Amino acid sequence: MKTGLEYMESLRKRNIKVYVKGQLLKSQEVIDHPFIRGHVNSAAMTYELAHDPVAEDLVTATSHLTGKKINRFTHIHQSKEDLIKKVKMLRMISQRTGTCYQRCVGFDALNAVYCTTYEMDQKLGTGYHERIKKYVEYIQENDIMVAGAMTDPKGDRSLRPGQQADPDMFVHVVERNDKGIVVRGAKAHMTGMVNSHEMLIMPTMSMVAEDKDYAVSCAIPVDAPGVLHIFGRQTNDDRKCEGEIDQGNAQFGIVGGECLTVLENVFVPWEKVFMCGETDFAGMMVGRFASYHRQNYGGCKGGVSDIVIGAAAVMADYSGYGKATHIKDKINEMIHLTETLYACSIACSSEGKQTASGSYFVDPLLANVGKHNVTRLIYDIDRIAQDIGGGLTATLPSESDLRNPEIGKYVEKYFKGVATVPTEDRMRIARLLENMTGGTALVESMHGAGSPQAQKIMYSKLSNLEHKKRAAMALAGIKLKEAE
Amino acid sequence: MKTGLEYMESLRKRNIKVYVKGQLLKSQEVIDHPFIRGHVNSAAMTYELAHDPVAEDLVTATSHLTGKKINRFTHIHQSKEDLIKKVKMLRMISQRTGTCYQRCVGFDALNAVYCTTYEMDQKLGTGYHERIKKYVEYIQENDIMVAGAMTDPKGDRSLRPGQQADPDMFVHVVERNDKGIVVRGAKAHMTGMVNSHEMLIMPTMSMVAEDKDYAVSCAIPVDAPGVLHIFGRQTNDDRKCEGEIDQGNAQFGIVGGECLTVLENVFVPWEKVFMCGETDFAGMMVGRFASYHRQNYGGCKGGVSDIVIGAAAVMADYSGYGKATHIKDKINEMIHLTETLYACSIACSSEGKQTASGSYFVDPLLANVGKHNVTRLIYDIDRIAQDIGGGLTATLPSESDLRNPEIGKYVEKYFKGVATVPTEDRMRIARLLENMTGGTALVESMHGAGSPQAQKIMYSKLSNLEHKKRAAMALAGIKLKEAE
Amino acid sequence: MKTGLEYMESLRKRNIKVYVKGQLLKSQEVIDHPFIRGHVNSAAMTYELAHDPVAEDLVTATSHLTGKKINRFTHIHQSKEDLIKKVKMLRMISQRTGTCYQRCVGFDALNAVYCTTYEMDQKLGTGYHERIKKYVEYIQENDIMVAGAMTDPKGDRSLRPGQQADPDMFVHVVERNDKGIVVRGAKAHMTGMVNSHEMLIMPTMSMVAEDKDYAVSCAIPVDAPGVLHIFGRQTNDDRKCEGEIDQGNAQFGIVGGECLTVLENVFVPWEKVFMCGETDFAGMMVGRFASYHRQNYGGCKGGVSDIVIGAAAVMADYSGYGKATHIKDKINEMIHLTETLYACSIACSSEGKQTASGSYFVDPLLANVGKHNVTRLIYDIDRIAQDIGGGLTATLPSESDLRNPEIGKYVEKYFKGVATVPTEDRMRIARLLENMTGGTALVESMHGAGSPQAQKIMYSKLSNLEHKKRAAMALAGIKLKEAE
Amino acid sequence: MKTGLEYMESLRKRNIKVYVKGQLLKSQEVIDHPFIRGHVNSAAMTYELAHDPVAEDLVTATSHLTGKKINRFTHIHQSKEDLIKKVKMLRMISQRTGTCYQRCVGFDALNAVYCTTYEMDQKLGTGYHERIKKYVEYIQENDIMVAGAMTDPKGDRSLRPGQQADPDMFVHVVERNDKGIVVRGAKAHMTGMVNSHEMLIMPTMSMVAEDKDYAVSCAIPVDAPGVLHIFGRQTNDDRKCEGEIDQGNAQFGIVGGECLTVLENVFVPWEKVFMCGETDFAGMMVGRFASYHRQNYGGCKGGVSDIVIGAAAVMADYSGYGKATHIKDKINEMIHLTETLYACSIACSSEGKQTASGSYFVDPLLANVGKHNVTRLIYDIDRIAQDIGGGLTATLPSESDLRNPEIGKYVEKYFKGVATVPTEDRMRIARLLENMTGGTALVESMHGAGSPQAQKIMYSKLSNLEHKKRAAMALAGIKLKEAE
Repeated sequence: MKTGLEYMESLRKRNIKVYVKGQLLKSQEVIDHPFIRGHVNSAAMTYELAHDPVAEDLVTATSHLTGKKINRFTHIHQSKEDLIKKVKMLRMISQRTGTCYQRCVGFDALNAVYCTTYEMDQKLGTGYHERIKKYVEYIQENDIMVAGAMTDPKGDRSLRPGQQADPDMFVHVVERNDKGIVVRGAKAHMTGMVNSHEMLIMPTMSMVAEDKDYAVSCAIPVDAPGVLHIFGRQTNDDRKCEGEIDQGNAQFGIVGGECLTVLENVFVPWEKVFMCGETDFAGMMVGRFASYHRQNYGGCKGGVSDIVIGAAAVMADYSGYGKATHIKDKINEMIHLTETLYACSIACSSEGKQTASGSYFVDPLLANVGKHNVTRLIYDIDRIAQDIGGGLTATLPSESDLRNPEIGKYVEKYFKGVATVPTEDRMRIARLLENMTGGTALVESMHGAGSPQAQKIMYSKLSNLEHKKRAAMALAGIKLKEAE
Repeated sequence: MKTGLEYMESLRKRNIKVYVKGQLLKSQEVIDHPFIRGHVNSAAMTYELAHDPVAEDLVTATSHLTGKKINRFTHIHQSKEDLIKKVKMLRMISQRTGTCYQRCVGFDALNAVYCTTYEMDQKLGTGYHERIKKYVEYIQENDIMVAGAMTDPKGDRSLRPGQQADPDMFVHVVERNDKGIVVRGAKAHMTGMVNSHEMLIMPTMSMVAEDKDYAVSCAIPVDAPGVLHIFGRQTNDDRKCEGEIDQGNAQFGIVGGECLTVLENVFVPWEKVFMCGETDFAGMMVGRFASYHRQNYGGCKGGVSDIVIGAAAVMADYSGYGKATHIKDKINEMIHLTETLYACSIACSSEGKQTASGSYFVDPLLANVGKHNVTRLIYDIDRIAQDIGGGLTATLPSESDLRNPEIGKYVEKYFKGVATVPTEDRMRIARLLENMTGGTALVESMHGAGSPQAQKIMYSKLSNLEHKKRAAMALAGIKLKEAE
Repeated sequence: MKTGLEYMESLRKRNIKVYVKGQLLKSQEVIDHPFIRGHVNSAAMTYELAHDPVAEDLVTATSHLTGKKINRFTHIHQSKEDLIKKVKMLRMISQRTGTCYQRCVGFDALNAVYCTTYEMDQKLGTGYHERIKKYVEYIQENDIMVAGAMTDPKGDRSLRPGQQADPDMFVHVVERNDKGIVVRGAKAHMTGMVNSHEMLIMPTMSMVAEDKDYAVSCAIPVDAPGVLHIFGRQTNDDRKCEGEIDQGNAQFGIVGGECLTVLENVFVPWEKVFMCGETDFAGMMVGRFASYHRQNYGGCKGGVSDIVIGAAAVMADYSGYGKATHIKDKINEMIHLTETLYACSIACSSEGKQTASGSYFVDPLLANVGKHNVTRLIYDIDRIAQDIGGGLTATLPSESDLRNPEIGKYVEKYFKGVATVPTEDRMRIARLLENMTGGTALVESMHGAGSPQAQKIMYSKLSNLEHKKRAAMALAGIKLKEAE
Repeated sequence: MKTGLEYMESLRKRNIKVYVKGQLLKSQEVIDHPFIRGHVNSAAMTYELAHDPVAEDLVTATSHLTGKKINRFTHIHQSKEDLIKKVKMLRMISQRTGTCYQRCVGFDALNAVYCTTYEMDQKLGTGYHERIKKYVEYIQENDIMVAGAMTDPKGDRSLRPGQQADPDMFVHVVERNDKGIVVRGAKAHMTGMVNSHEMLIMPTMSMVAEDKDYAVSCAIPVDAPGVLHIFGRQTNDDRKCEGEIDQGNAQFGIVGGECLTVLENVFVPWEKVFMCGETDFAGMMVGRFASYHRQNYGGCKGGVSDIVIGAAAVMADYSGYGKATHIKDKINEMIHLTETLYACSIACSSEGKQTASGSYFVDPLLANVGKHNVTRLIYDIDRIAQDIGGGLTATLPSESDLRNPEIGKYVEKYFKGVATVPTEDRMRIARLLENMTGGTALVESMHGAGSPQAQKIMYSKLSNLEHKKRAAMALAGIKLKEAE
């Protein structure tokens, strides 16, 4: 298992093309760019904590393929306990970083492809499962960071892949030969991509027969020929090029450091192809990935919210109203909401079931419920945090003002709260709250792992409404007819 | 294990004093009173389903005391799996009854007293645990229905037990002798009491040294000398004395059939006394019971909500708008909220821990979170059901109107929805919705197992706010001082 | 202007057919039936307060037709000030009755028919407006209580009137002759009908050309030949036949005392016909009525909520927790929600505009917004009231128990709160809370004046979304193309 | 009345000290700084629209002092109609700027000081009212932009002004002489200050006798000796130094451009002092200002939300899901919430009353209700907008990427939605949504015009809870005792 440092060094060896604000970065220095550094630090935590005696029970696992101790982020879940540990690991790491560490996406992709290929092979006689097993072993042995790559640009949302004006709006196979396939298109909102080693491509939605070329899953190095990445902007990203305090969470990034990844006719050898034309199984792969990924949000966002709660509580103390009843009530409300999110993630894990492949899959209904709650409750939590945080979080001067020899004294004097706490500390907490409760961080809670409507649609499929109707009719004394 | 019928017969043998609307019922006929019959039927389901091949896996367990197969409602939880099965059992039975079947209260009381006495004995050298073990064995062997009896009338809420103008506002010991103790006072809101065999008394809150006489736990037959019960009114209870349809859920009662139980100097032999003066452990007993009981609500109310969802969906079908997009969205919203409740109950069970006594206890933070969500989300679910249900649920004529030879035809004609569904069926569903979404049923969701504030108070105790503060400070780059 | 007593006496003179629970009432005694008495008392308040010096400024107006002082409930709004006074009058009367007094429905119907007929005549050359003017004058002179009659049974909601299996699912004209028309069908959920003098029929939705026979508006005495009424059940209606306390609000009814009104080939002379076949104006009449009626809800429900707030606050005082911070906060929250409702009603009145007929019409967008808030916030208000009210409101014994010579003392003793308040008073407040926060009262807030979806649909029509889009594009720096 | 351009030119003539990110700006160039320019543009709109024939009815008024046509922002309200026009003016200007234009703060300050001084003079025999009248006339004649200056830094919130470790945490009088007074301290979160001409100081809370030196109100030029301003940071402020698109709303700023204003022993002549030691009237002045200012929020935020709604709707169109039912429902929900806010502002204006001075004051209860709704509903509106907006708003690359000759084509290609809309337009709308729905804009809705708790506290004072209690008791049949 790599250490955090070894992970970073390994990234320098890539020959990756990353553009940030219109500039192509030097490959070896990608991870040093101020926009990217924090995301690398977050991801590095997933490596480093595997070596931390306090954390290793959660962050490591035993490979079912090799029997070796591996980083959990490369593991194929072998039990409900594994599913639960995943959630606890995510909450714990979030409490250390206050943000996304990106590695769950590839983790979930590996698990989704693993169990789907098994069932696909069983049904269609294909041979994908052995390939993914070998690929997983490679990932485990080398402690690789994999970017899960599902979301296509999608173009006009009212049209299917093959109906788009531009055929590249969904990743598709443009060539098949005896060595492999050539794919083309792009993946959007790619979390952790620029600081990963590999990406694992999956289709983005259920497919019909005509979408054959779009039903493709395969693994590609992030620096393969034909691949380039355009890094997205985040809230206050420019502050990362300035001093420390105004960044809020100076060591780590805001959410996942997303990018657009362009695949300009990229070759993939057959051994790294896990689906190619099996449109019937696109939906299953998407569904498995989505549920695994939605499982996470009560863990990772739970941990992030723990920090938001803590920061709000500290701000209240620093400002002299930490003991006010209405503040305590608001903090308890944030705790209530946070634990509700966590409960959903624990529950969908505890209700997990074994798949045909032997691996474990979460309860998809409860996983969707958890993510859907994130799209609401995080907004409530952050709203309350902004309430407690005070107007300060929106009007604070810059660190440069604090450091300025002429006016620094005024900043120091007039932004002081209780007499015993340095103004700088109060500014730091205000900036942390600002960083965590608005902009990119909020939007991620909404759309990461699927927009709210994506979960609602699943409810119709996953809850047995007919059973509920019949139970109600029975209690109402309505005779069910033969045919019913 | 008793069958439902045997349970009912056993109730007839009691010599119990029950008043309903100012009338003392004949002891043998208590269970035949229209106000009470439905509650008996609900509770009988907990007996009957133990003999149902489909349900028995959930409704039975193996006694850790005797190794025999017992009704789960008499079981002391031996694993997390037991805790989870409890929740699933509750949801399943609720789907059969659409209402409370009361027996979880005594179930939770037994478990709370069981583990608390063990720790009390360890600390104080008392001998209560052996007594409760024997009592549990008696309960299991005879498949006894126990009413958990915690809530005292409390009088002036701003005063402690000993400060009340009337010393009886909390149950207390008025005499101790070599055979046993004499208790006095009352327990309010007693669920299932009038159709139970025994009651298990517990203190209602934490106690201080001066409250010594009030720190009492003991078991008493519901028909012991000095005990009488005054049955509470429920929404539309009078309809139970009329025809069938207007009752909504004619076979079963609304929630628990609560009563005031008066204890007028009741003698209890020492072998049935489980706490007597150990004020330091009153809080633990209350806390254990409260958490066990709050665990339930995502199960039982989840099942009840399944019926509400089903009834709303049926009403939509019957009225011709079952396929409308906004209706589907509302049904999905009800499903979302219901599963959120369920997730909390599963999670607090899955996160359960073994107690010193060997039995298992739920995660108290998550159990409180679950109950607190019930005090909110049930209102949302019922609001949506009333939205879908239509004005009908508030203005429908009576069954007598439907049966009337002159105007029955008009009721039939004008309350018809889609042409293929009999008007009577539509009326039945409307009445079921009316029954389940208002009045007593709502208030029970609010106050059963403790009012909302009772849960919020627990958050301050059970969540580690200091840890959250320190984690936030670390990320903000604030140096922690030595002393901190 | 009639007094309350004169109003009641006038009702006895009707020859009306009312069925309650399958029994035909004697015409003169209809208003004495326990199910109906409370509703009569409420409506009588609208008459009595016109003679109350404190209230008369709100409850009376000056007729624009005769210049005489009239009861405001018969007035055609002549100014924004009239619209605002209507809202204030409604809130004030609700504070006296704690419930619906029904008379606004006919009030709104008169105003809707008044302005719609004017515009219809202008467009089509018909002569309806003079008829409604004469009818209004008759209503004013005789201080008549008019039931607004809009809602048809509707049958299968996915079908239009003419598509229904049964043509009578919407009121329609079955004969036209030189004296008048004959109508047939029924009106459902008729508020205040059984204690009105007249009903004013209106169509229930927009019509297309094929619906010609269904586009009908006319006035009919409630006791005209061919008319009969079947009274609906309400929550706890049977308690009205028992003692006083358990009723909660013993003097007044719960909401409007709705009934099904059957029109079995009822003749209407031409002078009382205000629309007959003009399908193009059905939508306008419905829209005018709906907006006038939705205007009310922040007034009447605001006043009802004032009582709920007061009752919750009294219960808190009686129980000893009136000074607890979380209780105060909850009461403030109820105030916040109540005033939000009220603000919407005031705003839509203040933004009212003069119609072509000279009368005033509310702002329809804001009127819809107000009613839509009622379908949500009343549920929140009542939920909080039930929180403060305690479990008592769901488990209290009956008044008979309190009066019972043997157990009355226990009820007295154990339901006491603070020592200085009689238990009976505490029971009375608990019953009032029970009466006002569940069942029929809640459903009325949801469906009265139109279900939530009915308001949402109006938003698309009434808010200028295109203007908002263009304003956004302008700020985003997007060039609008010529064609746009 | 000045034009927008004249306003800008007048600002250049000031000798003001403004620091931005640690740099002192040149006085003449303050308004050119990219951080400040947008705020100047917004404020200029309040000048420019007074000359716009479409807008002038709302943006101008007739001075009650001189009879001249003046800019409404300098007007003392003379009628309810004036109060309503204020709200409509604010909504209209917000629809043009999509952000705060700052000038209402001084507008409200003038009105608050105007009516308070009249009542203070009446009670205490002081002579402040004539001074403020002259000052208002000066403001009107010269079309001055006044910054309302209320919020003090406050230090430790658990301490009163005189108890603070640092006596300067609230602005206070440090010297009184025959020419005037000298004040010291600072005002925080000062909206529009750096582009105003004058500031109008008011106390920040009710005062007790010991706070005498802190009860001070006076007018000071923003560039008076001893005054300096430290400009606060806003979300994504650095982007204002880059290209256009990434700014979102390139022409205008985000909310008010707040600063810390330091008063280092500033002299104020007596004719510009409006309160000096009259602690009994500090509370009234604060309350008047707070209510006037809370009145605004349904107007200005209503207009801002119109843009957010429009932008979300445009994004839905551009992405191809503009016709989806769930999107329409969400847009209707945003409209519902926005109009609820607006309704509160209209209602508190319509319910306004004349003050002793002859000017008009809003209904304070409803004004508080409106602002309190803003602290909640804006978060809901923005959450829904982010839902509709898609992940794009959080991960979009920069304008530089779009312009880059190598990768611009990929940005163009892969961020395209429906085929007919240029990608650049879609990016512009995404950036506008990003700009308006997070960070500073959200926090302003929470804390501007007072934090949520500030409104809740007012409810206890302004709603007649005792009346509600008595009305409830009357309906419950409880006899009121003599003393009550």
